[in-house]
Amino acid sequence: MIKTKLLITTLLMSVLVTSNAFAAKKVHRWKLAETWPTNFPIFGDTSKNMAKMVKEMSDGRLIIQIHSRNKHKAPLGVLDMVKAGQYQMGHTAAYYYKGKDINTMFFTTMPFGMVASEQYAWFYHGGGMELMEKVFDKHRILAFPGGNTGNQMGGWFRKEINSLDDLKGLKMRIPGFAGEVLAQVGAKPTNIPAGELFTALERNTIDALEWVGPSLDLRMGFHKVAPYYYTGWHEPGAELQFMVNKRAYEKLPKDLQAILKTAMRVAAYDMYTQSTHESGKNLASISKDYPNVKIKTFPNDVMTALRAANQQLLADFASKDTLTKEIIESQRTYLEQVRPWTNISDQAYLNSAK
Amino acid sequence: MIKTKLLITTLLMSVLVTSNAFAAKKVHRWKLAETWPTNFPIFGDTSKNMAKMVKEMSDGRLIIQIHSRNKHKAPLGVLDMVKAGQYQMGHTAAYYYKGKDINTMFFTTMPFGMVASEQYAWFYHGGGMELMEKVFDKHRILAFPGGNTGNQMGGWFRKEINSLDDLKGLKMRIPGFAGEVLAQVGAKPTNIPAGELFTALERNTIDALEWVGPSLDLRMGFHKVAPYYYTGWHEPGAELQFMVNKRAYEKLPKDLQAILKTAMRVAAYDMYTQSTHESGKNLASISKDYPNVKIKTFPNDVMTALRAANQQLLADFASKDTLTKEIIESQRTYLEQVRPWTNISDQAYLNSAK
Repeated sequence: MIKTKLLITTLLMSVLVTSNAFAAKKVHRWKLAETWPTNFPIFGDTSKNMAKMVKEMSDGRLIIQIHSRNKHKAPLGVLDMVKAGQYQMGHTAAYYYKGKDINTMFFTTMPFGMVASEQYAWFYHGGGMELMEKVFDKHRILAFPGGNTGNQMGGWFRKEINSLDDLKGLKMRIPGFAGEVLAQVGAKPTNIPAGELFTALERNTIDALEWVGPSLDLRMGFHKVAPYYYTGWHEPGAELQFMVNKRAYEKLPKDLQAILKTAMRVAAYDMYTQSTHESGKNLASISKDYPNVKIKTFPNDVMTALRAANQQLLADFASKDTLTKEIIESQRTYLEQVRPWTNISDQAYLNSAK
Repeated sequence: MIKTKLLITTLLMSVLVTSNAFAAKKVHRWKLAETWPTNFPIFGDTSKNMAKMVKEMSDGRLIIQIHSRNKHKAPLGVLDMVKAGQYQMGHTAAYYYKGKDINTMFFTTMPFGMVASEQYAWFYHGGGMELMEKVFDKHRILAFPGGNTGNQMGGWFRKEINSLDDLKGLKMRIPGFAGEVLAQVGAKPTNIPAGELFTALERNTIDALEWVGPSLDLRMGFHKVAPYYYTGWHEPGAELQFMVNKRAYEKLPKDLQAILKTAMRVAAYDMYTQSTHESGKNLASISKDYPNVKIKTFPNDVMTALRAANQQLLADFASKDTLTKEIIESQRTYLEQVRPWTNISDQAYLNSAK
């Protein structure tokens, strides 16, 4: 009987000792709401890539199920749903929520702002993450970079733009802040659902539109009806965002927090790489099959006017809110520091090493 | 007694069930040999960043101890030490080993080759990883991108280069393949240990040298004695490499393999971001404190001659080995596809949005 008692005690202790390890095997099941439709290329690949890395690295202890807009029906409600804890996380773009909180606008991209490499440097070394934390804290959300599209194209135009006059009254699908800048120089910005864009452009309902770049424009077919493809100025490095409900994040064990943060970080960079690849591939395809497509850059007077309008609007925003002013100042001074480097490195190389 | 037996059986089963979880707590201790000296900035931060992420994500189950060159005394022996299993992994640059295996040369950077964003796209979507695997397989090594310096500067020159003639007989510290290209156009490339570089430049032992870019050049002080800082052509996107002993990797459980791969991938991207930041910061510091430093781009005849020499040398290499030819072809066709995109995105933007 004493031997039996000893055996039972030993076994009990074994169970207790291993119970911690056993507890670590608890599976956390999260849901992510994404702004995009099911199987949307590149953007949708990014949340899938992130969830897959999390599953593999956590040995199945953190499972993130993705709901596309087809499921949750609220593409621009992601911030609210994550804030409410209805979803533990989301994949969206911060600037969609500028109507709710103007300060969310600055973390995706800004006209005449930073390119992807510069903006990542600002996020991770120039105070960008700290400012984003300040803005999203009031929404009880942790926000992280969620994938870069690279420099977005200025859009598809049915007619060539030879001077500022050609923009007067021009009907263009260009949403958000860039649309406000264009309105300042006399264009008529409008928003049209994605599914109706091709027909609107084909039937002259609009004169021009911007979408993303070759990576996502090719499948839309715009090059078939609007042969002037303008280089970009308004979204030089559009970065999506992952949003995480703060309380849900704090409930995760430390190792799963690290796994989630790392997976989001690499998935964001990976999207920039994928965007670069798909843009190169699709641009080659457009150039080959549609040799009449002409790549153009806006004339100097247009660029000067757009730049001035942009600066005026930013000054207006800065005068209204201390935090807005702080973010605009941070981005301006960081760009002033980093751009000379971009100029003497990649720009000088691309200009000289043809 | 039956009850006791049942209790013992139940407890035994509990121990068995939890033993898998318990086994997963095994700690794997790895050593990494890096080419750099202790606490070398940026490069050294990258291996530390990687090891820290691995530790946090694995909850201490994979611990990577870093040995700098000060410890292992074999900065250019990293490939051999990883191959032999003396170290489970290394942090170095593939092109240091071109004397041992010419095909390792192509995975760091090539003159007139891809910039960082293009090269990441080639690695991850254009067949680069598959080719790197092919090359390193014979060394029983898995190689991965290990951090990008960004576009490297063409170097510090005591005198201005106004034509190809000014390169004839010019003594320049520029090691590796770029040195061979320069030799083709009449320069006298030489290699000098890092610690003696400043004095060599100051005392006219050499006329010029290249190092990295403002991120790592500032601390070397070259700007104090050679006021002409030339933009780059020879290392447009230098990517370091993590090298992992294949057998050691295969012995890791699947989740630790995923953790290691993800940590290396993000640490590599992070180095590019850090390099961008440090370059911007240090260039601003040089410009402020040394206004006599002049940023220059080589004249057209120099660039044309360097480009021709580079192409000739590549053709020579390609004629000697099938795999070499395959890699050169892959890089050439990928660059032809991706560069038009870089030209109409970042280049056009940087040229127009001053």
